[in-house]
Amino acid sequence: MHTLTKQPTSFLDAITGPAELKQMSVEDLQKLAGEIRHEIVSSLSRTGGHLASNLGIVEITLALHRVFNTPQDQILWDVGHQAYVHKMLTGRRNRFDTLRQFKGLSGFVTPVESEHDAFVAGHSSTSVSLAVGMAIARDHLKQDHKVIAVIGDGGLTGGMALEAINHLGHIQKNVLIVLNDNEMSISENTGGLALYMKRIKETFFYRDIKEKLDSIEGSLDKVQLTAGIWDMILEVKKQAKERFDTPGIVFEKLGINYSGPIDGHDVDAVVQAFEAVKDKSAPQIVHLITCKGKGYQPAEDDSIKYHGVPAFSLEPQLSEKVDESPKPKPKTYSDVFTQALIDVAKDEPNLVAITPATAEGSGLVKFGKAYPERFFDVAICEQHAVTMAAGMAKAGLKPVVSIYSTFLQRAMDQVIHDVAILNLPVVFGVDRGGLVEDGETHQGVFDIAYLRSVPNFTVLAPKDAAELRDMVYTAVKESKGPVAIRFPRDKAVGATADGEYSGTPSNQPRLIEPTRWEILQPGVTTKKDQKPAVILAYGSMVDMTRQALETFESAEKPTLVNARSVKPLDVSLLGELLRDGHDTFITIEEGCLSGGFGAAVLEWMSTAGQEITDGLPRVIPIAIPDQFVEHGARAILLDLNGLSKEKIAQRIEKVLKK
Amino acid sequence: MHTLTKQPTSFLDAITGPAELKQMSVEDLQKLAGEIRHEIVSSLSRTGGHLASNLGIVEITLALHRVFNTPQDQILWDVGHQAYVHKMLTGRRNRFDTLRQFKGLSGFVTPVESEHDAFVAGHSSTSVSLAVGMAIARDHLKQDHKVIAVIGDGGLTGGMALEAINHLGHIQKNVLIVLNDNEMSISENTGGLALYMKRIKETFFYRDIKEKLDSIEGSLDKVQLTAGIWDMILEVKKQAKERFDTPGIVFEKLGINYSGPIDGHDVDAVVQAFEAVKDKSAPQIVHLITCKGKGYQPAEDDSIKYHGVPAFSLEPQLSEKVDESPKPKPKTYSDVFTQALIDVAKDEPNLVAITPATAEGSGLVKFGKAYPERFFDVAICEQHAVTMAAGMAKAGLKPVVSIYSTFLQRAMDQVIHDVAILNLPVVFGVDRGGLVEDGETHQGVFDIAYLRSVPNFTVLAPKDAAELRDMVYTAVKESKGPVAIRFPRDKAVGATADGEYSGTPSNQPRLIEPTRWEILQPGVTTKKDQKPAVILAYGSMVDMTRQALETFESAEKPTLVNARSVKPLDVSLLGELLRDGHDTFITIEEGCLSGGFGAAVLEWMSTAGQEITDGLPRVIPIAIPDQFVEHGARAILLDLNGLSKEKIAQRIEKVLKK
Repeated sequence: MHTLTKQPTSFLDAITGPAELKQMSVEDLQKLAGEIRHEIVSSLSRTGGHLASNLGIVEITLALHRVFNTPQDQILWDVGHQAYVHKMLTGRRNRFDTLRQFKGLSGFVTPVESEHDAFVAGHSSTSVSLAVGMAIARDHLKQDHKVIAVIGDGGLTGGMALEAINHLGHIQKNVLIVLNDNEMSISENTGGLALYMKRIKETFFYRDIKEKLDSIEGSLDKVQLTAGIWDMILEVKKQAKERFDTPGIVFEKLGINYSGPIDGHDVDAVVQAFEAVKDKSAPQIVHLITCKGKGYQPAEDDSIKYHGVPAFSLEPQLSEKVDESPKPKPKTYSDVFTQALIDVAKDEPNLVAITPATAEGSGLVKFGKAYPERFFDVAICEQHAVTMAAGMAKAGLKPVVSIYSTFLQRAMDQVIHDVAILNLPVVFGVDRGGLVEDGETHQGVFDIAYLRSVPNFTVLAPKDAAELRDMVYTAVKESKGPVAIRFPRDKAVGATADGEYSGTPSNQPRLIEPTRWEILQPGVTTKKDQKPAVILAYGSMVDMTRQALETFESAEKPTLVNARSVKPLDVSLLGELLRDGHDTFITIEEGCLSGGFGAAVLEWMSTAGQEITDGLPRVIPIAIPDQFVEHGARAILLDLNGLSKEKIAQRIEKVLKK
Repeated sequence: MHTLTKQPTSFLDAITGPAELKQMSVEDLQKLAGEIRHEIVSSLSRTGGHLASNLGIVEITLALHRVFNTPQDQILWDVGHQAYVHKMLTGRRNRFDTLRQFKGLSGFVTPVESEHDAFVAGHSSTSVSLAVGMAIARDHLKQDHKVIAVIGDGGLTGGMALEAINHLGHIQKNVLIVLNDNEMSISENTGGLALYMKRIKETFFYRDIKEKLDSIEGSLDKVQLTAGIWDMILEVKKQAKERFDTPGIVFEKLGINYSGPIDGHDVDAVVQAFEAVKDKSAPQIVHLITCKGKGYQPAEDDSIKYHGVPAFSLEPQLSEKVDESPKPKPKTYSDVFTQALIDVAKDEPNLVAITPATAEGSGLVKFGKAYPERFFDVAICEQHAVTMAAGMAKAGLKPVVSIYSTFLQRAMDQVIHDVAILNLPVVFGVDRGGLVEDGETHQGVFDIAYLRSVPNFTVLAPKDAAELRDMVYTAVKESKGPVAIRFPRDKAVGATADGEYSGTPSNQPRLIEPTRWEILQPGVTTKKDQKPAVILAYGSMVDMTRQALETFESAEKPTLVNARSVKPLDVSLLGELLRDGHDTFITIEEGCLSGGFGAAVLEWMSTAGQEITDGLPRVIPIAIPDQFVEHGARAILLDLNGLSKEKIAQRIEKVLKK
């Protein structure tokens, strides 16, 4: 039974800032670690959040704040979702009940929130580059403080982290890399480097050659040797030690001094390791072995499940509440996407699915179980994922890349240079397209704009579950070039928990014409000699607009179009509407205004559209304004950005009145 | 004297395809290498192109085609500009005079041109990802051929190449990586990995421990040892050999079998190395040491200068023609940008400049000479460059990133996530913004669209040299957030060879208001009660439009505005123009139509603009259509895309007539 009872928090209560840690005994620090763990589990049971990674980094965080002095010393937390303990120790403990709530504590680090947060971080693998930049700045400005990058073994698979380590090895700046190695990023970790680090831990391979040398030396004691021979033997030992007697030889060869591996849950050992490198001027990496979910048995047993959790009840037994809901949950778009892939894979033997370490979040792990041989989790390597898919497509496979909108930004060049130029049939499942609760770093609001500027691309978004299924089916079966299908992090419209999709005659996927739009509801107007306004809604906004129109009381009703393809536009339908006399168009999309779907319609109206009509039709784009969007519940953020059904209704009424 | 006389080409003449290479003796291959070198120098002296890298890879290419069989075996040429020899050997020799000419031979590889080109490549570091994808496809499709990635030591610094090697080490696919190591990318190479590989070559460090062991063994012969001790010594030697007796230990540890280093100009040795790994099923890396510019003395001496060369005359002495022009050349925008940086750096001690391996192309090498301590060439690491700059800005420096438009695509996420969210004052000099002769992979046409969709960004483009200088000065002095200044690869308007800029009272940089547009020429109209059309020209198109308007014969003349800021728009001027009754606007930009400057004006007119006027102003965007642009002279490509002065004039006249 993983229940949690009220425990004392005497040590934690005494902490007002990092300074107090410096006075505490190691034993007390270890007790404090226990209290912090308890508080994290208890707190996240109410708010949800990144549980396992924060349980794993308690002692490392305590040791960092014990040995170093923030905010003078700068700690760069890679990804930032591992910084809850850091937040607790730097004056934010009493706000934990607001974690990830609108206007509450951010789920990541951000200097806006505290001077102890040296930078913002939501995406992986940025910390070493930031540290190198800050170390150069420190030296240039003749300052004297430590710059520390805390990165996980998962973050280390990201190309830019490797670029930064390579550069750091070259310029030899005073940077400390703290490698928090728990053998997994979000999913299980991938890569030669991960295997290598695993080998370090398992075998400590360097020991046996040292033992062998010692043994020879012992035996030689028994025979008579000249001084010269002894010198040589010592020299060999010295060289062996210098060059090979380190498990971190790869890092050493790249110019980063390595120490470890060290038990990352032994506060004393971690403090000592940091003390030992604290005053070194050359770059250092300290390799700490931790256990994700440490100290909370369900999370230790399944840290993937407990990576990010919704709020949960602690009693009765957690697992029942977190995982085994008594009744099945409504399907999300991610679920529908994965199921569609699994279904079409049956008769498409060359379909393969690729994910850059988001197999769980995207639900694609289910595909991996169904087709392990056709499933590729490449770790946090968005660039490699996309270009590898391009190579696969060129060589005759049908690759599908499942990727979050915000992470696809990392592979923009690969999308253009490797996929689009050769017009390769790679299907992109762009998950989390739109607003998400995670805040500025994770908003999926740019994909419509940047994907539609790439020649050869088809950019789709479904109005509901059945359409997503059919888009996936059609894209896999028929597409001759790259296709992106974007969908939000939300329950899928029309999907029931039992896997049926409303509005479809059968549950079989169908070939559709996804680049043709459909008129869902013809409008009515009372204005003489005029045609109703036309609403062109894209993806998630189709159903939202439908709901908005239901609240309408006026006799005036606009025509509602499911504009499911932002590229190409359905210019045939647009042309018809123009010829038919429609002169007011409203576009609605869950993406940035700048360069988005609205801009696409405006561009067309101002060029090809101008050949059709002499009039100048009005086009009013409704989209996300030009600013970063904070964290908070999706419903709040949609409303804040004018995309709730209420705000949409108000805006449409205003347009119609004009 | 580096003159070139006509030489026999009997071996080269006999080659109709790779098959013939398999019959030739090694001696004849070496002779063929000489003929190919001669032909490359001779041919590039007429067309220009990538000289040094192709001279360096002659023997490797011969050996590849000797041992492997394209197009069945797939060779992925990283970057692709090193593939001239490959092109000569695969049926394209007789088209070399058209190299990089419009409708001529591409300067890179592309399957559109030959089945022997397995993929397209123009950007660096993609080959291993492609190879991994193609190897997975091969195995899945039960095919049987070799997949080979040919990558330089420069390409290996790119994060995505490291991502791919890491993944390859994990999945252990049959891929051969040919590492063409000439110790430089375009500029001199940077990074711990480069230093490591250099050490491999210089010291072959593993040898001395082996020698020491041998020596001990020899000495021990002289004393009496038991059999058990001998066994131990042999075991130590075996372990030392297995584990350490390889210079490629870093690759080995990542799971890639290493062989080398091998002299890459010894055809026989290279052929043998390829034969040795040909039938291995695990991933292999063969490390070949080459000399860029091999066989052509001026290029060997200065391979950076000869990286990419314009057409040159072979007699008299090359160096005079290529480099020491009798009179100074007109300054390019790159020159002006670098000079502006050097000038402002004088009284801005915290200004630092960063380049991802394009110091020569961008002219920034001159800044590096003036301020070596403030100059950072991070190798081919666009992502790291941008995030490092973000760290620098946060820590108090004034970083300026000089980067080509096409390569900035690689750092899109870093621009958003690391620079823009915190609104950090990083200045981007976006070089090669617009059309370039290099073709699809290098066109800098997307930056306006993707940068302007990022909140907090200012996106500028100067109309001439003096304005570029003033923009740089103002951005460095005054900007509080990220600023991008884009300029084309072209002679700078108004710059003379002696460094004076026309149109400015003095040659001192001035603070300007770069986000305010300026009316350059007021228009005239003969239409009663109407206002002239307004042309909003951006960056390079300001002068082009000015020239177009000069050819106008009609009495009707539009107003010409230098719309130097695409973000923010000068909404104050736009509002004035609307209130003043102007109702026709033409935007002109050297960027993609989708989401570009025209879209920005359309968006504003359809939202804020609608609050100002009851009318519906016409906005006609002139921009690059939605397709990839091939290679050819810039003037040709501009005309092809409607952006020559003739095409602009025609288009404007058409609009005015409507």
